[in-house]
Amino acid sequence: MFNGDMEQKRTRAMKKVWDAIEDHGGQTLLSTGITGDDARIAKAVVESGIKLLEPNHPAVALARGHKGVTSMHDAEMIRHEISLQEMAKVTKGVRNTVGEEPFITVGVPGGFTEVIPVVLEEADFHLMSVSGADGLHTHKSNLHDLEELVKVSHKYGLTVDAYIGHPSDLHTFGLPAEMPEDVAHVARQMEDVGVDMIGLMTGMSYEGVAAGDIPNIVKERLHALVSTVKVPTLAEGGINTENVKAFRDTGVHIIVVGTALDDEVKRAAQQVAKQFIHIK
Amino acid sequence: MFNGDMEQKRTRAMKKVWDAIEDHGGQTLLSTGITGDDARIAKAVVESGIKLLEPNHPAVALARGHKGVTSMHDAEMIRHEISLQEMAKVTKGVRNTVGEEPFITVGVPGGFTEVIPVVLEEADFHLMSVSGADGLHTHKSNLHDLEELVKVSHKYGLTVDAYIGHPSDLHTFGLPAEMPEDVAHVARQMEDVGVDMIGLMTGMSYEGVAAGDIPNIVKERLHALVSTVKVPTLAEGGINTENVKAFRDTGVHIIVVGTALDDEVKRAAQQVAKQFIHIK
Repeated sequence: MFNGDMEQKRTRAMKKVWDAIEDHGGQTLLSTGITGDDARIAKAVVESGIKLLEPNHPAVALARGHKGVTSMHDAEMIRHEISLQEMAKVTKGVRNTVGEEPFITVGVPGGFTEVIPVVLEEADFHLMSVSGADGLHTHKSNLHDLEELVKVSHKYGLTVDAYIGHPSDLHTFGLPAEMPEDVAHVARQMEDVGVDMIGLMTGMSYEGVAAGDIPNIVKERLHALVSTVKVPTLAEGGINTENVKAFRDTGVHIIVVGTALDDEVKRAAQQVAKQFIHIK
Repeated sequence: MFNGDMEQKRTRAMKKVWDAIEDHGGQTLLSTGITGDDARIAKAVVESGIKLLEPNHPAVALARGHKGVTSMHDAEMIRHEISLQEMAKVTKGVRNTVGEEPFITVGVPGGFTEVIPVVLEEADFHLMSVSGADGLHTHKSNLHDLEELVKVSHKYGLTVDAYIGHPSDLHTFGLPAEMPEDVAHVARQMEDVGVDMIGLMTGMSYEGVAAGDIPNIVKERLHALVSTVKVPTLAEGGINTENVKAFRDTGVHIIVVGTALDDEVKRAAQQVAKQFIHIK
């Protein structure tokens, strides 16, 4: 009864993404971390040109000081304790302040490769969709699980962005694929099951401004992804202002930025605090 | 059965405040806005020397995009819709990440001059106390209400910081007192009912870096407050790096900084976002 409507909703969402890519000259940014979940900061970066936002449950765990975690690495260990209802509230709050135009894709418990059986009911997809999400940001590591997730997401008009990781990654953030040809193979499978955007994890997540150059093998894997699929492609993990140019050169459509921006925001807060303390 | 314990708890809390004042050479900062409620940022500023934090319900309304508010002025209109349970969660999260040392005073619905009858039960004071609050940050405008609030707060070991406003203020943030002698009179009454820290509202709240010089009458009112009471004094509203020196010169113990810091954090986020967008 609403399949056609939801296909329209998803088509509109993907148009936002393609428009953002075009508006920014062929490559755009997806902003996560504090810019994805703090409505004050989300609004600020949207005003300066960001068109794609990504609230997610580990970043919310960090933002809320859940269990006292103070790093994204630790936040990944307890992210499943953030409720889907909380993520729906976060999404609604961000949507409320940034308006309809920005594309918002949301990481929810159950949408990543979780360590306990987090159940995602149809009602959960419905809730995320009515809360203002355009899509779900996922990190499943198994094609069958991903296919199921895509099916229900699409039913409720949600796009799905999903990722490819490396078997030796510290965090399991995607379907494993080691060599460029493996990446191409997995990417094709993901596209076949209906994934709307496919990303490659660099393996450098949460290294922020400390993350170094982009290794050749990452460039080759990213190139394999970009040259294989028709859907928008993403690169995520440790991208900063120093190494972003190398990522751009691979032709990837969307650069995901989180920790590098969080780091700068924290540094700014610290600078102002010190300034106030020292004015006598 | 726990009155003595709770007096000890409150004494420890006030020691944190006096120690902060001494450590910073006679005057310290209380940091609110994003530094008070976002655990990531609270931790960052504590690491750079901030010792007093203030989460509050209007700032949380803004942070969460509640009803789509995008300014603190608008957030004040709907702040009572943020639940006390939410403020307890915020407090616990911040406490979790910053540890026991920083003094945390919390604005909760019912603790300000609310426009609907927000009921504060004893259980609410208990919850805030066990969630990690050292005190309650209040903006009552009536001495009798304040006295009641102080009594229950003290029972649960919570300090109370309360404020004096001007009758013509845009937001009602304290007991009204127009001339310096009125300020002295009201401050004495507040001290008599047991308020642990007394602040003066400048009437320039949320003007951020745009707030101008400090008018002479504000200096005189602040001087009246500082010279009348023995408890720590605060100045709040529109204090920025440009005008903070003038506030310091009044001898006030604690400078409250919120919007000026929020503005700089937002600016930093915007700068980084633009930088990423423009690197090709």
